[in-house]
Amino acid sequence: MAIRPLPTRTNPDSPSDSRSSEPFPSSSKVYVDGSRGLRVPMREIALSGGEPPLRVYDTSGPQGVDVREGLPPGRRDWIVAREVEALGPTPVEGRDLIPSTLRRPRLRGRGAVTQLRYARQGEITPEMEFAAIREGMPAETVRSEVARGRAIIPANINHPELEPMVIGRAFHVKINANIGNSAVTSSIDEEVEKLRWATLWGADTVMDLSTGKHIHETREWIVRNSAVPIGTVPIYQALEKTGGVAEELTWEIYRDTLIEQAEQGVDYFTVHAGVLLRYVPLTAHRVTGIVSRGGSILAKWCLSHHQENFLYTRFREICEIMAAYDVSFSLGDGLRPGSIADANDEAQFAELRTQGELTKIAWEHGVQVMNEGPGHVPMHLIKENMEKQLEWCGEAPFYTLGPLTTDIAPGYDHITSAIGAAMIGWYGTAMLCYVTPKEHLGLPNRDDVKAGVIAYKIAAHAADLAKGHPSAQARDDALSRARFDFRWEDQFNLALDPVTARAFHDETLPAHGAKAAHFCSMCGPKFCSMQITQDVRAYAKEMEGKSAEFRERGGEIYVQRE
Amino acid sequence: MAIRPLPTRTNPDSPSDSRSSEPFPSSSKVYVDGSRGLRVPMREIALSGGEPPLRVYDTSGPQGVDVREGLPPGRRDWIVAREVEALGPTPVEGRDLIPSTLRRPRLRGRGAVTQLRYARQGEITPEMEFAAIREGMPAETVRSEVARGRAIIPANINHPELEPMVIGRAFHVKINANIGNSAVTSSIDEEVEKLRWATLWGADTVMDLSTGKHIHETREWIVRNSAVPIGTVPIYQALEKTGGVAEELTWEIYRDTLIEQAEQGVDYFTVHAGVLLRYVPLTAHRVTGIVSRGGSILAKWCLSHHQENFLYTRFREICEIMAAYDVSFSLGDGLRPGSIADANDEAQFAELRTQGELTKIAWEHGVQVMNEGPGHVPMHLIKENMEKQLEWCGEAPFYTLGPLTTDIAPGYDHITSAIGAAMIGWYGTAMLCYVTPKEHLGLPNRDDVKAGVIAYKIAAHAADLAKGHPSAQARDDALSRARFDFRWEDQFNLALDPVTARAFHDETLPAHGAKAAHFCSMCGPKFCSMQITQDVRAYAKEMEGKSAEFRERGGEIYVQRE
Repeated sequence: MAIRPLPTRTNPDSPSDSRSSEPFPSSSKVYVDGSRGLRVPMREIALSGGEPPLRVYDTSGPQGVDVREGLPPGRRDWIVAREVEALGPTPVEGRDLIPSTLRRPRLRGRGAVTQLRYARQGEITPEMEFAAIREGMPAETVRSEVARGRAIIPANINHPELEPMVIGRAFHVKINANIGNSAVTSSIDEEVEKLRWATLWGADTVMDLSTGKHIHETREWIVRNSAVPIGTVPIYQALEKTGGVAEELTWEIYRDTLIEQAEQGVDYFTVHAGVLLRYVPLTAHRVTGIVSRGGSILAKWCLSHHQENFLYTRFREICEIMAAYDVSFSLGDGLRPGSIADANDEAQFAELRTQGELTKIAWEHGVQVMNEGPGHVPMHLIKENMEKQLEWCGEAPFYTLGPLTTDIAPGYDHITSAIGAAMIGWYGTAMLCYVTPKEHLGLPNRDDVKAGVIAYKIAAHAADLAKGHPSAQARDDALSRARFDFRWEDQFNLALDPVTARAFHDETLPAHGAKAAHFCSMCGPKFCSMQITQDVRAYAKEMEGKSAEFRERGGEIYVQRE
Repeated sequence: MAIRPLPTRTNPDSPSDSRSSEPFPSSSKVYVDGSRGLRVPMREIALSGGEPPLRVYDTSGPQGVDVREGLPPGRRDWIVAREVEALGPTPVEGRDLIPSTLRRPRLRGRGAVTQLRYARQGEITPEMEFAAIREGMPAETVRSEVARGRAIIPANINHPELEPMVIGRAFHVKINANIGNSAVTSSIDEEVEKLRWATLWGADTVMDLSTGKHIHETREWIVRNSAVPIGTVPIYQALEKTGGVAEELTWEIYRDTLIEQAEQGVDYFTVHAGVLLRYVPLTAHRVTGIVSRGGSILAKWCLSHHQENFLYTRFREICEIMAAYDVSFSLGDGLRPGSIADANDEAQFAELRTQGELTKIAWEHGVQVMNEGPGHVPMHLIKENMEKQLEWCGEAPFYTLGPLTTDIAPGYDHITSAIGAAMIGWYGTAMLCYVTPKEHLGLPNRDDVKAGVIAYKIAAHAADLAKGHPSAQARDDALSRARFDFRWEDQFNLALDPVTARAFHDETLPAHGAKAAHFCSMCGPKFCSMQITQDVRAYAKEMEGKSAEFRERGGEIYVQRE
């Protein structure tokens, strides 16, 4: 099934037809101009009833582009103006599966070419300005938050197709969608399609967690077609190179994998450098031991060699590589709890302390950092996660998987985890990694990806409201006004998923006329609660008039008693 | 589609076949014996791998009963032993639609025959003991909480088919499912089917919100076939009697409706007695005015007569009626916020204060009370709702609709509201009124009812975990152990929805052998994170051995440094 692209409105005075542009009817992509020729995409929702159009954050990227060409390299000029050098000809891997039209020249920085370095130098990069316009905030706020390590802009210099965005608790809460093939199922085409699908519905970043065949080629297609930052877990590919034998992993295999992926343009790496040998026994008496794939690979390596995790011992070398491409760290939580019983235990928090130590080392190298967090955590233990992370990790952005607030609902873990995600987002988590209904059971298909993204857009938006993001409530208010005025089309169009909202309405009241009716299927045409407010407003006006008259005559307040 | 009944296991030593008993494979209904011949149903989930079976709370009621006969009147003997009198022959309404096999003799108490009265007298009724066994708590705890007004047992003396349950914050968080036909759609058969369907998946109470034709007959079928308490909003039927004209409502029409429904066996009534005339103008400047159907009916009545709400002025008379049948109050929140913008405003809290005043009047009359709460509330304003309700309403049980934590996701409001419901349940709300995906858009069908119930079972269970209910975590732990041991069938069977969990697993790994495989589709057979814990445990054991040896030799602690 092909995705209908969002129409780009070239003439802002001619709104697009409200029915022809699924999945977002009455929406069009518009561009906000910044300095230096920046054009920042927004989705503008046209409304009726005299309401002004509403602009919302847009992650869908350029539409209608041939996936064999990849997206236009909009950042190219900004990047080549920096201290970068061209590398040799592109590597030969995957020649059969990567057409020449997808290949890009590769760059490497001479030293740190990171947004963190520029921010510390007081420079507002185009990336910072771009992200700031998306947030509706001053560019200086973005620069300052990045400089302090409280926000990151994941933006590999080899990912010129990126539309830059910022992750930090001063900004909109972001969501990540995981995709990726595995040994068991799925193909490159499907993964690229999932990328486009996930970002169409609002994923702010996408992680490619492929573990099967064609890892390199799949990633190339994904990065070249992605306007959002791409994250990976390089140890997965390194493990493939050893034929799946964790004991045979070496620093050299891992290092080469990091460089290979950095040169492809991956924007952030999950690195499980906090899984220390001495922490591994702390998981022995857990109900669910080690559930992170990366964590268990490293634990196995540590145990079989009886040596410290090489990601920890080589951490400064890793920082140097990542600085040269501006790959951001997503410091992995390999010992995260996999069940309610294991939440907030010694193993988890020992690793979090080490994540804090590593965060500061990365900052010394000018590398941007966020920290990954759990996992499965009951509601009353969620806040402690956020508080400890802020304290121990110097306020680096927190990036959590859920957390899932109960273990008993496989098949519905997008919901068990949206509860925890909304709460931890409110407490200060900067990005929420989605969980799909297939979590624990299988690999997500298209429908699962959408269900996960929508559940997490809800969690992130609920968090934005609760933490008082200045522009968050505008959309709630616009939708509620539409609901109250019976502007059904506007209500659908302002929804996170207009297609589903409309379809549900049609199920009960399919007639087109019902979309204009001043009632809904809940109460029916005879009695409608919302209509009554008209009477209330008239009455209140009358009362206000009487009250003014009463005060003018110097009367005392009358309190009605029953 | 017919519901496959849960098999009743007559011989506890012969577990039922694991495949034949959808929707809960490997489950059987068992009975825990109490005193006085009480037999309290539980669902017992048989497990493999040497795990003991797990018993869970069961709301599904007697299975395999002909809906034209109704459920067996298990409470009859307890009730007739009280100060009750038989009323005349059953009324003639709906003779065509109510078969004689469904008709029951009607009773009325001589004075208050309420659980509250008996609890205050120090009596542990069979209802209290029954509910206590379900909770796994002493009967005295139930009696004491009911006596203090902190819990209610909704149990109309004309609802002998009821399996009693308790609503209060010392106990499991409960969930309510709304059903009901409207002027626009649905039939009696469908509503009875929705009742059975909702309770099969775990609804603790059901509200019949019918507003269309055959309100009386629909309710008769529902009560006679319900093992859970049934709630209604009597003003809906009273309004039907005036042909839908709110201004023509009178105390007499309403009173007769209360008595009619009390004699049918409705267990709790939503009464919007807190919507006072002087509060109505407070809603005039809201984004969404008055959104409660009951609230707006009363507001319209108050405005058109310029008189105080007759539910308020006649409240003591209402109490006398309800005491005589032991119908519990669910004091309605007619001015609840219908949008994020209106949350926690003056109108809402003015009504809540009045709910508190009315709660105490009801208690004077020996009538059980809970209070309804919002609505649409952003996360950071939820706690204030709970705190004010506890303070103003004397710790009567709180019963909230969600709350929805954002307005922007019509089509997914089971999720926007499960977030708020889980949080307010943790803070102390005793019962959560479900919201289905169709909220704001249309009437829920079978799938929507199930989606709403499951989302709310998640919220309620997450709240039970967070508030530390002593037995809540046993199910999470059992499921997580099953997950970790690759006991796939056990994992499915312990889930809230085994059918969906199994179907999702089958989508990726359909082969029957995969259910026994020590891997899943996430990592594939070659590498599996969970397997690694076996190594970890062996290593930890070895380390513990070494450590003991080391201590025996009087050595110093060695801390590994990198």
